[in-house]
Amino acid sequence: MSSPATSLSTDPASGTRDFLPEDMVVRHRVFDTIREVFESHGFDPLDTPAFERLDVLTGKYGEEGDQLIFKILKRGEQEATGEADLALRYDLTVPLARVVARYGSQLVTPFKRYHIAPVWRADRPGHGRFREFFQCDVDIVGSDSLVADASVIATATDALDRLGLGGFRVQLNSRKALRGLIAAYGVDEAREADTLIALDKLDKVGVDGVVAELAERGIPSAAIEALGADLSGDDLHGAVRERLEGTEAGRAGLAEVDRILALLGGEVAGGTVAWSPVLARGLSYYTGPVWEFVHDDLDATIAAGGRYDGLVGMFTGTDLPAVGSSLGIERILLLLAEQDQAATGPDVVVTIMDDDGATDAMEMAQEVRTAGFSADLWVGTGKFGKQLKYADRRDARVAVIAGAREREAGTVAVKHLASGDQATIDRTALVSHLTDLLG
Amino acid sequence: MSSPATSLSTDPASGTRDFLPEDMVVRHRVFDTIREVFESHGFDPLDTPAFERLDVLTGKYGEEGDQLIFKILKRGEQEATGEADLALRYDLTVPLARVVARYGSQLVTPFKRYHIAPVWRADRPGHGRFREFFQCDVDIVGSDSLVADASVIATATDALDRLGLGGFRVQLNSRKALRGLIAAYGVDEAREADTLIALDKLDKVGVDGVVAELAERGIPSAAIEALGADLSGDDLHGAVRERLEGTEAGRAGLAEVDRILALLGGEVAGGTVAWSPVLARGLSYYTGPVWEFVHDDLDATIAAGGRYDGLVGMFTGTDLPAVGSSLGIERILLLLAEQDQAATGPDVVVTIMDDDGATDAMEMAQEVRTAGFSADLWVGTGKFGKQLKYADRRDARVAVIAGAREREAGTVAVKHLASGDQATIDRTALVSHLTDLLG
Repeated sequence: MSSPATSLSTDPASGTRDFLPEDMVVRHRVFDTIREVFESHGFDPLDTPAFERLDVLTGKYGEEGDQLIFKILKRGEQEATGEADLALRYDLTVPLARVVARYGSQLVTPFKRYHIAPVWRADRPGHGRFREFFQCDVDIVGSDSLVADASVIATATDALDRLGLGGFRVQLNSRKALRGLIAAYGVDEAREADTLIALDKLDKVGVDGVVAELAERGIPSAAIEALGADLSGDDLHGAVRERLEGTEAGRAGLAEVDRILALLGGEVAGGTVAWSPVLARGLSYYTGPVWEFVHDDLDATIAAGGRYDGLVGMFTGTDLPAVGSSLGIERILLLLAEQDQAATGPDVVVTIMDDDGATDAMEMAQEVRTAGFSADLWVGTGKFGKQLKYADRRDARVAVIAGAREREAGTVAVKHLASGDQATIDRTALVSHLTDLLG
Repeated sequence: MSSPATSLSTDPASGTRDFLPEDMVVRHRVFDTIREVFESHGFDPLDTPAFERLDVLTGKYGEEGDQLIFKILKRGEQEATGEADLALRYDLTVPLARVVARYGSQLVTPFKRYHIAPVWRADRPGHGRFREFFQCDVDIVGSDSLVADASVIATATDALDRLGLGGFRVQLNSRKALRGLIAAYGVDEAREADTLIALDKLDKVGVDGVVAELAERGIPSAAIEALGADLSGDDLHGAVRERLEGTEAGRAGLAEVDRILALLGGEVAGGTVAWSPVLARGLSYYTGPVWEFVHDDLDATIAAGGRYDGLVGMFTGTDLPAVGSSLGIERILLLLAEQDQAATGPDVVVTIMDDDGATDAMEMAQEVRTAGFSADLWVGTGKFGKQLKYADRRDARVAVIAGAREREAGTVAVKHLASGDQATIDRTALVSHLTDLLG
């Protein structure tokens, strides 16, 4: 290094995070649980490279998205051109589309995959918004059966329940129902997006807010009046259902919703599922059922998804039916990190009182591991007090101590760190004693 | 997209790989096993961002290494400058050094961490050489006790053994012993690197090859003669030990080796450990003990490591003792992918014979999952034959079948796919029947 070492910042790059051991324990536990549930539902893991060729990504995320792609400079002689040829993964859906196009019939169809991995976006970092963050997607490609939609809902449901995040409401709707709704109120098809954006805010801004926004967006006043009346009436579901039954798209959407509700039996592990007549979901690519998992206690949307039959075929030029659920994994990790109080340290720390005891300490640690416990070994230099402090900071449950006196007597001392109780036992009884103590 | 979709290659970027489900099963199994072993030895997980600020990485890997760093273009208005401000992680050691400098006393000392993660190098892709590949490091920072060295050896040993890669030899030496050796043969200190590079090739090129290379590198002929005689003598270990005992560095190095051998008890899980008098390890930053895990049957070095007391302090400007083992995880994954024959599919595939049976099929799948089995559900459209073919391609063990006839009779058919045996049982007995069948 030519510059003095101390002039360098040691913070992680802006918008990224270091995950220290206490963070990683929660992250591993969450990822492991999700993996287990996804696999128990018959989904297979997939992973793709962190970067793609730039042309694979550009044009897939709209103009705004393109601006947020991290681009990688060409290398070697071409570095001086200042041009990029690679880019960091922006989501997990474009890589899925590429994989489906690339491997085709080598994949079992319907292709059920999950993918839990970081993506990178050059967004302005902010509270809870990062430039490197994980996505957690479960998707089915190659089936237009609504059993697929119900399956990805049930899979997300099960995962959230197993994570201890039960108590959510699954709000279910269909893009087709929304199209029917727009038509039923006499809104022009071209104004569908405007209308849906306003409607989607009902939970946040209330009926008056929606009505005001619709007017601002220039929706005809007759339509706004009818909509406003239905939204503030006693029976929103009944009123909207009646209107939907008057249009073809509306009937098709209702049928999708009713079928999925029937398949799920109306109730799901950890929550309820019900039709939500005005749920739209922001993204434009959805083509059929859409849903959000809302957790009122936590005031958060913790999962969402839908059917997007036009997207995965982007590299083959043919439409390919696809449906998926995304867990809001970063939000989930934050919620669980706050809740998580479980001990994370090793079961045992084996201390070393003097050089002569080190070989036996290594042996004891290995015996303890072979019995199925985790055993940390003191590898530093320093007196007993320092070692006990280390065991304490590591959140260990037990310290094993063998000084010269114990070795001579063929014994070992076992200290239970929470209670402070200490017992001197026969060296040969170490494993059985720990098994009793640690359960 | 402005260009036709079909003009795009769907291959992963050069030097990178897609990991399809069959690859991922092996990778997950290997990573999970390693994690479990590392944690049982008291090592904590750490993760750092995929990219660092460019100035954190440059100058750390020599001129050649700097050329291989993937640099990330500035964004927004600054993109046009063609300059980079970020770069993809090149190894896991510089991030460790940054973390140690950044979080200091927030970390428990000695700091025992493992890190399993991808790194990126713009190397020319080739057989078994990738631009995105995983590293798997276990390190202890903040201890100069040789118990730390022995611990990282024992940890790597245990992990390899648990992966079924027993049968290796741990070759152990010390950089101090090598310095003593050079001195003992009368080679100038300034020629140490040249001499070690030549010596390190003994296994590959034999004594004559080493002697020829030493001559080529201009090492004095008296030294070459003495070295050649020792290398081809009956008792290499004895001859070198005698020479080492004549120098201070040599005695210090021998003491390190002997102490680690004593701590490990001469034998380790899955292999043997012995002094290897001419093992040097290529990297220049090692300062004390060094080792390699050589697997003769597999003709591969599957792990390596050593003590590097001068490196981790790079950001603080103070030396900080550190020692670590690296598993050759990509090589290990290749070896195990070849060996791995274990079934990977779901326990059960629940078929759907008609729309009316779909809700019950979903329920059955969930019952089976609750009982602890994995249950895939047919989510496609298509006749029974197609569904059985799917179950077969998924490597499922059992298919559960309920058509209109079964539903009416309150029964369900269970087909064992390997044997072809099929039994029709009471619907209520499904879980107990599967428990008997699948164990």
